Amino acid sequence: MNELSTMSVKTPEERLKELEMQLKIYASRNLDLNMSRGKPCSDQLDLSNEMLTIPIPIENDPNKDLRNYGTLDGLPETKKLFADILEVNPSEIIIGGNSSLSMMYNALAKAMLYGTFDSERPWKDEISVKFICPVPGYDRHFTICEQLGIEMIPVEMKEDGPDMVKVEALVKNDPTIKGMWCVPKYSNPSGITYSSDVVGRLASMVTAATDFKLMWDNAYVVHDLYDEVDHLDNIMEACKAAGNPDRAYLFTSMSKVTFAGAAVAAMAGSEACINHILKILGVQTIGTDKINQYRHVAFLRDSDGVTAHMKKHAEIIRPKFQVVLDLFEQHFGDRVMAQWSKPKGGYFINLNLKNSSAKEVVRLAETAGLKLTEAGATFPYKNDPLDSNLRIAPTFPPLEEMTTAIEILCICIELVYLKFQEK
Amino acid sequence: MNELSTMSVKTPEERLKELEMQLKIYASRNLDLNMSRGKPCSDQLDLSNEMLTIPIPIENDPNKDLRNYGTLDGLPETKKLFADILEVNPSEIIIGGNSSLSMMYNALAKAMLYGTFDSERPWKDEISVKFICPVPGYDRHFTICEQLGIEMIPVEMKEDGPDMVKVEALVKNDPTIKGMWCVPKYSNPSGITYSSDVVGRLASMVTAATDFKLMWDNAYVVHDLYDEVDHLDNIMEACKAAGNPDRAYLFTSMSKVTFAGAAVAAMAGSEACINHILKILGVQTIGTDKINQYRHVAFLRDSDGVTAHMKKHAEIIRPKFQVVLDLFEQHFGDRVMAQWSKPKGGYFINLNLKNSSAKEVVRLAETAGLKLTEAGATFPYKNDPLDSNLRIAPTFPPLEEMTTAIEILCICIELVYLKFQEK
Repeated sequence: MNELSTMSVKTPEERLKELEMQLKIYASRNLDLNMSRGKPCSDQLDLSNEMLTIPIPIENDPNKDLRNYGTLDGLPETKKLFADILEVNPSEIIIGGNSSLSMMYNALAKAMLYGTFDSERPWKDEISVKFICPVPGYDRHFTICEQLGIEMIPVEMKEDGPDMVKVEALVKNDPTIKGMWCVPKYSNPSGITYSSDVVGRLASMVTAATDFKLMWDNAYVVHDLYDEVDHLDNIMEACKAAGNPDRAYLFTSMSKVTFAGAAVAAMAGSEACINHILKILGVQTIGTDKINQYRHVAFLRDSDGVTAHMKKHAEIIRPKFQVVLDLFEQHFGDRVMAQWSKPKGGYFINLNLKNSSAKEVVRLAETAGLKLTEAGATFPYKNDPLDSNLRIAPTFPPLEEMTTAIEILCICIELVYLKFQEK
Repeated sequence: MNELSTMSVKTPEERLKELEMQLKIYASRNLDLNMSRGKPCSDQLDLSNEMLTIPIPIENDPNKDLRNYGTLDGLPETKKLFADILEVNPSEIIIGGNSSLSMMYNALAKAMLYGTFDSERPWKDEISVKFICPVPGYDRHFTICEQLGIEMIPVEMKEDGPDMVKVEALVKNDPTIKGMWCVPKYSNPSGITYSSDVVGRLASMVTAATDFKLMWDNAYVVHDLYDEVDHLDNIMEACKAAGNPDRAYLFTSMSKVTFAGAAVAAMAGSEACINHILKILGVQTIGTDKINQYRHVAFLRDSDGVTAHMKKHAEIIRPKFQVVLDLFEQHFGDRVMAQWSKPKGGYFINLNLKNSSAKEVVRLAETAGLKLTEAGATFPYKNDPLDSNLRIAPTFPPLEEMTTAIEILCICIELVYLKFQEK
């Protein structure tokens, strides 16, 4: 007997009591379930264990020794791999350490301190600096802006990407808007991939700031869940074609391809931007870990190798996404209490609840041992004005735990919904 | 027949011609010798090859998985290793990526953007920020200051460390002096280790800036060349004892212990400083490469393991240092044309020539295929006011190449000396 049919014969009061009892039973189990972060699970990490024992060649030429200092921009073969994935030239790539987040942070911190390639002055010397932030979005992007004192302007995500009418109107008139965060494919958390129209308009829109930057975080560029994949237009080509070749900074990493904490990240930009960044970067470091760069190329080989490898990831995490989607459908099939995304890739399911209920759902879930991504985290300053959005991260918990977690979540959603109806 | 006895029977003009001929012969050999940077040689790197195949344990607890995201401050066992080496508590350590330089850069860049734990305001909002730079010193420290717009005040290195009378007078009266670079052991390039008196005075001196920071780059903390080693006092203890617990930021790395480009770095500071830095750092990254952190502990084990490992390094590079010292003694035994350091550890020999000749020596050497560290590089703004200081880096070239390189260098020094005498 499923929940829906149970519900249909009960009064709301009876149902409320039943749900409270169910939650109490879960709470008594001292569960410790965590669906808060987009982490790969152990089975996914196991897919790359071969990389741990890959033989590292010792070059005869000591100047090419992978073990020694040098090579600020990264190994040529690693640059080639990332260039193929991001659809840019190897000369437009810088290989970083294990964190693309750190590369994004550095790009903006250095824009603050020194300005970008095409800035008139350091951003710190501007009266104010603002960024457009599509919402819901990635909390860590927002925290970077907050720390650097960059004011965030939320713009709504539509079915095909950010609301371009609003974006165009904003950037056209305000020279203090210096950039915009974008997770253009399988967006965090909405799962949306920007349409060709959106990509084209982002590349060609008129900006009052001469040094406007698209922070193009293509974190899920190869993270398809199904055979049918979303297509994303090439932002670098679009920017060049529109006469704005220096507009986009691209980022991605192998963190959710190989080892989340020990992979390799990369950024891309026009040669003018990249050369400017390298000049500044050369003061900070002599270069990142070439041995690990080599491991990645030796293991993944090329973009076809990456695609093949990602199919194995999809086989592991697709069933987890499916459980969430199935349980949501089962509990909220009429879409009254909740609406959710059905992404073709990426790491998240986006969940929209009734207004003013997301925080309460998260709080209730925690009482039953389930940690969710903080309500509000998907908005700048952690401020979801409707308090309705939650980000569901299904990859990390084992399938069975995740089923329990979503059962708890569904109980909490219905409980909060019914309590609101009562008022 | 050695050079000195040859010289004694010739007129300066004859000797000049002879040296020019010798240099011409070297130049005709199309040599490509590089003594410009403090890089370990292949034999040194080979000492750590075992680390490339060390088995990485897969934890049963997915929250402790070395391969996954997490652990901003580093693995406990890696923190313990670095804490022992730097003689601080593990709670005073942050493990970084492969570059201590990058940690130093970040510490200062973030002081500019946000201030330090004990700053009244971000350093960027001060009218000016100045740093004391003992000279000769490490060029990369100076370039960081230059890029960040931190004005550098050179202070002379004496036999036991920086000239403390000058340092004390400067920091006492000028609140814009926010810090000081120190390579306290086997200093780059002088080879000097700071005396107990100097360490004590640095820890206890009165500074007009309330947030004065000693940038304590202990790069050569375990890099002894001989059984007889220099002793360096514990700066953290000294600062605590003097009532200035938050004064020192300590840095070191395993770059010249294991793999120069693929090692692990660390910084240390008071718990108050470290907690403040971690809070800011948590916005930039989720953590550094734990797998590589594990490799280092599994390979080196503990500080005794590090000491034993460094003895193997010393066996490889001691003969190289000796060749330089022997050739200098042979050519310039009377100390008229050149004076040099005889360090007990570290990576450099410091060479002082007649005034106004260092640049010319470097230029001449390059014509014969020998690349040296740029003259002036050991001073802020690359400005050696006397143009007399050169940094010799003997570790990287094979012994035979290095002998050739130093022969060329000695010829160039004598040539420039004689030409000056002519004028």
